[in-house]
Amino acid sequence: MNYKAYVFDVYGTLFDVYSISEKCTVYFADKGTVISQLWRQKQLEYSFLRQVMGAYKPFYEITKEALQYVCRSLHVPITNEIMEDLLQAYLKLSPFEEVERVLQMLSNETMAVFSNGSFDMLRPLLDHAGVAKYFTHIISVDEVKQYKLSPLAYQHVCSQLNVKPEEILFLSSNAWDIAGASHFGFQTAWINRTSGVMDVLDVTPNYTANDLQTLFNELMKK
Amino acid sequence: MNYKAYVFDVYGTLFDVYSISEKCTVYFADKGTVISQLWRQKQLEYSFLRQVMGAYKPFYEITKEALQYVCRSLHVPITNEIMEDLLQAYLKLSPFEEVERVLQMLSNETMAVFSNGSFDMLRPLLDHAGVAKYFTHIISVDEVKQYKLSPLAYQHVCSQLNVKPEEILFLSSNAWDIAGASHFGFQTAWINRTSGVMDVLDVTPNYTANDLQTLFNELMKK
Repeated sequence: MNYKAYVFDVYGTLFDVYSISEKCTVYFADKGTVISQLWRQKQLEYSFLRQVMGAYKPFYEITKEALQYVCRSLHVPITNEIMEDLLQAYLKLSPFEEVERVLQMLSNETMAVFSNGSFDMLRPLLDHAGVAKYFTHIISVDEVKQYKLSPLAYQHVCSQLNVKPEEILFLSSNAWDIAGASHFGFQTAWINRTSGVMDVLDVTPNYTANDLQTLFNELMKK
Repeated sequence: MNYKAYVFDVYGTLFDVYSISEKCTVYFADKGTVISQLWRQKQLEYSFLRQVMGAYKPFYEITKEALQYVCRSLHVPITNEIMEDLLQAYLKLSPFEEVERVLQMLSNETMAVFSNGSFDMLRPLLDHAGVAKYFTHIISVDEVKQYKLSPLAYQHVCSQLNVKPEEILFLSSNAWDIAGASHFGFQTAWINRTSGVMDVLDVTPNYTANDLQTLFNELMKK
């Protein structure tokens, strides 16, 4: 426990993205689960593709376009009203159960969130869950218009916090995010919530745990 | 039909990547199909992720690492011998049935292939299928170490052929590749072999057809 800053990814790490699948089930019945899963997959893919092409667009927009694609590809009609309602659900995701307990435990430390999400998504989300107060910085890639896992995105975190990469412990449930952050030089903790397998990308996270509580219980012992 | 060069993507466009699933079925029985599909998906994802991170590695290597990941994540053990045999199958993919007919039809035109594949994959593949003779240029991203859909990758095609982007008709079955190429400035034809839906990435291909023969039948009429 010797880091200058603890930087948390948001979607999938602090907040359960699949909590949105309940709402999808309301609208799409038995197709709800697969729509919510493909939506998330396509949302990420569009962030990678746009970053590679050099065609940045805010995350709220690509989240919407990903949903449009998924509904078209599954031949599921969707109205603008339903689309707006589902996008609104992104602002009210549920945090994982241990999140606030861990943030309280670390409240003497410098903590930030760092997300692909634009501020119009991040601020309402953190406010709704009542956890904004724990963070000294809310950092969005939208400020530099470079999606993770571009080195320019992670560099923005260092600039905002005024610390070196190796002084940061970066926590994410997304294996690709851990790969990018490790490659850039952050110390990394992979919150492996689904007991998945690490991607084969020449990087190994410094720590791996199934949830934040388990991780910090281990770190506190050191 | 007024282009200075016709540039073909390789995997999925000229060659059927899923023809590899037969071999996967030999080794993995009822899991063969899902392994071959996830393998392709992860192979592409790793090319995007490495491009975004700035951690280029040749396509042969990431193809191998994608297979390692898929087998680990599905808890399917794989020996080095089986891995090598499956990778060898990538060098002997089947071309789609209309490919040679169309290449013969265009034999007075300047034709090139342009692929994420490294030469150690492309040359044996084109030779095995007996179609190398139709192409004036075999162009690989490996020469510039920038994966599609980086603008630097498509720029390499222009440099090699000494033509402007808009003088090229680029043909690909991969919607993301069409998005990148269109965004760069190529004229594009999406060979929509699976009757899929175009990605929502602010680009529309100039032409869409279900196979190369259908496309060129239409183009010849103009």
